[in-house]
Amino acid sequence: MKLPPLEVGPRAGRVRDRLAGAGVDALLVTDLVNVRWLTGFTGSAGRALILPERVVLVTDGRYEERAAEELAAVGCDATVTIGRSVAAQDEALAAAVRGLATVGLEAEHVSWAGVERYRTALPAELVPTSGLVEAERRTKDAGELARIEHACSLASQALADVSHLLDAEPTEAAFALALEDRMRGLGADGPSFPSIVASGPNAAKPHHDPSDRRITDGDCLILDFGALYEGYHSDMTRTALLGEVDPWLEEAYAAVEATQAIGVAAARPDFAGRALDGVCRTALTGSGFGDHFTHGTGHGVGLLIHEVPWATAGSVDTLAVGDVVTVEPGVYRAGLGGVRIEDTVVITVDGCRPLTHTPKDLSCLRSPPTT
Amino acid sequence: MKLPPLEVGPRAGRVRDRLAGAGVDALLVTDLVNVRWLTGFTGSAGRALILPERVVLVTDGRYEERAAEELAAVGCDATVTIGRSVAAQDEALAAAVRGLATVGLEAEHVSWAGVERYRTALPAELVPTSGLVEAERRTKDAGELARIEHACSLASQALADVSHLLDAEPTEAAFALALEDRMRGLGADGPSFPSIVASGPNAAKPHHDPSDRRITDGDCLILDFGALYEGYHSDMTRTALLGEVDPWLEEAYAAVEATQAIGVAAARPDFAGRALDGVCRTALTGSGFGDHFTHGTGHGVGLLIHEVPWATAGSVDTLAVGDVVTVEPGVYRAGLGGVRIEDTVVITVDGCRPLTHTPKDLSCLRSPPTT
Repeated sequence: MKLPPLEVGPRAGRVRDRLAGAGVDALLVTDLVNVRWLTGFTGSAGRALILPERVVLVTDGRYEERAAEELAAVGCDATVTIGRSVAAQDEALAAAVRGLATVGLEAEHVSWAGVERYRTALPAELVPTSGLVEAERRTKDAGELARIEHACSLASQALADVSHLLDAEPTEAAFALALEDRMRGLGADGPSFPSIVASGPNAAKPHHDPSDRRITDGDCLILDFGALYEGYHSDMTRTALLGEVDPWLEEAYAAVEATQAIGVAAARPDFAGRALDGVCRTALTGSGFGDHFTHGTGHGVGLLIHEVPWATAGSVDTLAVGDVVTVEPGVYRAGLGGVRIEDTVVITVDGCRPLTHTPKDLSCLRSPPTT
Repeated sequence: MKLPPLEVGPRAGRVRDRLAGAGVDALLVTDLVNVRWLTGFTGSAGRALILPERVVLVTDGRYEERAAEELAAVGCDATVTIGRSVAAQDEALAAAVRGLATVGLEAEHVSWAGVERYRTALPAELVPTSGLVEAERRTKDAGELARIEHACSLASQALADVSHLLDAEPTEAAFALALEDRMRGLGADGPSFPSIVASGPNAAKPHHDPSDRRITDGDCLILDFGALYEGYHSDMTRTALLGEVDPWLEEAYAAVEATQAIGVAAARPDFAGRALDGVCRTALTGSGFGDHFTHGTGHGVGLLIHEVPWATAGSVDTLAVGDVVTVEPGVYRAGLGGVRIEDTVVITVDGCRPLTHTPKDLSCLRSPPTT
């Protein structure tokens, strides 16, 4: 699969343009997801320092070769500095910031203990910053969008390939394993999160772990899963009503399906995330299911499965072109089951474009009962 | 597989006994791994509050049913409180701590921004604490040890089952996929970390990501992988010299093999983690390979793949009965390759017992060249 290359080079500059507004001369990036986005480095330990004229990546001896290779592969010109201990790495950071008055720390990521350590280690005033990298990272470029969309297509293809297994009434866990194996077989690096395969009363739990329960006729079946591809996630939920189900579930399905379509129709630039949630909540309340909608409407998707922008009642985010966000209303009734339908969409200049293409109607998923 | 049950009930009491020494009346546990260890809850969002007389688990509406089920399954009697928003959850925490003078926060986990939020939300003095849960979590009980050892055996069996694939000179990525698929097929929940399959010059990178390079005759081959089973990790590294390799690698193998055995022989209660690292470093220096040993000797393994106790030059930990720790010296030479050998052991009253049982000698891994 030939996708447009990831081009990391310009990213640090986009963040650097925000530093003056945040009152800092430099930014120490400790969140590894942000480090990856800024530099292409995918190791398990490393910090990136955005300085006025350059970027420094500090990591340990395990990653000396890998860091250089990974940065070169995505056009990142950061300086790589190796320190065998955290103390040695801190000293390298201290040398790099010498002469600067203020250094920003990622206040949502750096720990309380970390702040105290940096107060001793770094010769500059420390300033808490919030979301400086994330504010740029949420806007996906062409290389990122291509990877997310490819991850979405791998997940859809995998579901199409394994859905015939439902004829044999597999357990939730067995079906989840088959789905994940198929995604990997198609080229995914893995599932983008632990797949949710929730059948019958288990579907009343929005975040159910696949169990040994057999998926059978008369069940509602929630499938919430995605693929991981070169660090990028996909996320999609479909609900199948297998044969004759409780009338509450039939009504819930119709309400959720209509609400989800309304949400997708509403998603556009300059629309508040809380308004997107509000539209869906109002629609489900109008159908009499509002009290059963126990979670938010959506979240951003990218290098993390959950990231800004949020589409929840408490969200302070406003949708913008290049955001990738889910729309996933759901309703649940303990002991009976639930319905959730989710697409991932990218916000475009005039609305949004769905990236998940599996049809909503999954009644074909399983052959009719032979009785 | 019938393993002894996990018994979570007594754990909160073990941590509570440490609260007075830390100068706090209660402890807010925000690290999800610690929350899981304390309560059995495995959701993606939740906080546990250890109060003088009880434990409260606060989470959101997605997990209402699951939290109750998971706690009951492991004998945890914590009160589950659901809040649909973070603000509502904070209010529940505030109500629970009312009347207490001091509340400890996990300083290595809670973020700088989180501390500021709790200062407003909680009616008590906030005190930074360090490692209170981890100090108990490192000591594995029978149920935990059984799961770690089972994960180790799944990984060993998987390697035995797929090693014949090396005859066909697969790519590193294909062999890693086969190994991980086999672990899942045997019952693992997944790999315990992204498998390292590093061949030829790639083996010079201690944390190499499997690539499209074909594993071939004349390579050194580092396999560093593990299985995940019911939340518990395994970790093992073996190095195979496939046919005729550079003499440096032959010598390095002999030095690392001897050093690793020395490390395992040294691991015992009341032995400092830095001393375990020192023993291995001294041994490799004595063989002339000290400068090529670019990482630490080992780390604890449990609900995390890397946890206390550490066996590194900077470690402040002392080994104790019930610790599960790796011993994994390695040496690397850019452009040529590397050698690492790793076992995971449990510290016993009179030394340690290896939990990883794959033979060190992997010369049988691949048939001799047919030329």
